[in-house]
Amino acid sequence: MDNRPIGFLDSGVGGLTVVRELMRQLPHEQVVYIGDSARAPYGPRPAEQIKTYTWELVNFLRKQDVKMIVLACNTATAVVWEDIKSQLDIPVIGVIMPGASAAIKATRTGKIGIIGTPMTVQSDIYREKITSLAPQSQVESLACPAFVPIVESNQMNSPLAKKAVYETLAPLVGQVDTLILGCTHYPLLRPIIQNVMGQEVALVDSGAESVRDISVLLNYFGINRDPRQPAQGHRFYTTGGADSFAHIAGNWLPDVPFTVNHIDLVASLDEVTV
Amino acid sequence: MDNRPIGFLDSGVGGLTVVRELMRQLPHEQVVYIGDSARAPYGPRPAEQIKTYTWELVNFLRKQDVKMIVLACNTATAVVWEDIKSQLDIPVIGVIMPGASAAIKATRTGKIGIIGTPMTVQSDIYREKITSLAPQSQVESLACPAFVPIVESNQMNSPLAKKAVYETLAPLVGQVDTLILGCTHYPLLRPIIQNVMGQEVALVDSGAESVRDISVLLNYFGINRDPRQPAQGHRFYTTGGADSFAHIAGNWLPDVPFTVNHIDLVASLDEVTV
Repeated sequence: MDNRPIGFLDSGVGGLTVVRELMRQLPHEQVVYIGDSARAPYGPRPAEQIKTYTWELVNFLRKQDVKMIVLACNTATAVVWEDIKSQLDIPVIGVIMPGASAAIKATRTGKIGIIGTPMTVQSDIYREKITSLAPQSQVESLACPAFVPIVESNQMNSPLAKKAVYETLAPLVGQVDTLILGCTHYPLLRPIIQNVMGQEVALVDSGAESVRDISVLLNYFGINRDPRQPAQGHRFYTTGGADSFAHIAGNWLPDVPFTVNHIDLVASLDEVTV
Repeated sequence: MDNRPIGFLDSGVGGLTVVRELMRQLPHEQVVYIGDSARAPYGPRPAEQIKTYTWELVNFLRKQDVKMIVLACNTATAVVWEDIKSQLDIPVIGVIMPGASAAIKATRTGKIGIIGTPMTVQSDIYREKITSLAPQSQVESLACPAFVPIVESNQMNSPLAKKAVYETLAPLVGQVDTLILGCTHYPLLRPIIQNVMGQEVALVDSGAESVRDISVLLNYFGINRDPRQPAQGHRFYTTGGADSFAHIAGNWLPDVPFTVNHIDLVASLDEVTV
């Protein structure tokens, strides 16, 4: 067993959708989370910049002595998962393979839609992973650049959100029987997305699916937390405003103790200098 | 991707229940299987002997150039999984953690039964794994030494089987809401077991559950087989009679091409000597 926390990173609050599912399935695990809301969204940024930012988040989490790192961000997974996984000596989980596998199981017609950030869609990684396992699949990808800013500004239930989802998803309506929410922010818009796509379309939550992989890998590497240990509070850090993050986390997560603190990421990674 | 086969081992034909589930969930993967029917059952043997026999099976599979080894045998997993996993440079999957995790999810009352071979029950490994993740669970273990010989002699549908299951399981009836089939041979007796325990008891098939772990680990290590490669036939080897093995495999597996050959395990592991 290993009683250290699991580290989660995301460009902002989206990874909370993964944490919520973790708290449901593996309630005795402890979470340390870093969200880079000050620099969100990552999706429209160049790959090199996403790589640099994600490594900064990884290095922050390593300083917290985590036993596993979850890239709870599709954009970061698409760009830098393989690189991080190959360089660290702890397990590193991405959210794309779990989402791709779940979509292959869910589809009846083989027509699968992916929505994600511009970088995730441009990387074409979902299509690549899906067709590598199920070559007959037809994959339609669509970038949704408006969605992350809506979630980060806590406007999930606004008329603006409804309008943006309706207009953005129009090209996919009626075209697919399964839709991958290929960005961990998107489950916060799930009711609107389901409504626009139709109740008969299966929505695959890539982040929630990844909790199954987390569970299997905790078992495989023998690093589950001992539930008889006293519970430690979950710790959330954001490069943005702590109040806004805490508000969204409080609405989204189950009723468990946690702290939220603002952090200056670059300063935290520097050695102390006078 | 990695187009090499996955290696399965068991004391006999029990691992076929894992292979059947693999063929359903991951039909493009290729199987090489070794069953040690000549020395089955393993369950009543001393731990050191089980360890020696299992390592012989592992070494046979390594000569077949497999990319992953599945200990499709609870007894072998209980005794020697950690040892094999730590010594090989390919992933090694056991069937106990997947079964334990599934039972924790399935139970409503926390009262979980385990049936297995004498060695699996004596090792107490299921209780240890279950209570390490869910300390409030009440675990009842029961050894069923009669079951493996019934399956190995292809008497699954005989009056003898019904009598043995009825008499053996009597102490557990009404005591648990979830029963782990903690031996890969037991799903071949599933209809009788379900009938004796009652329809309301959830049966957990430890072998079938492990296919989820196989899938996650193929993804994690990036070693899925490319489904566009031409299919290779599945290859089964047994230290017992090939005809008997082929008969059980033909009844149990889906309609896919496979070969069954008898093998002299010890001779096959020796270097060629004149």
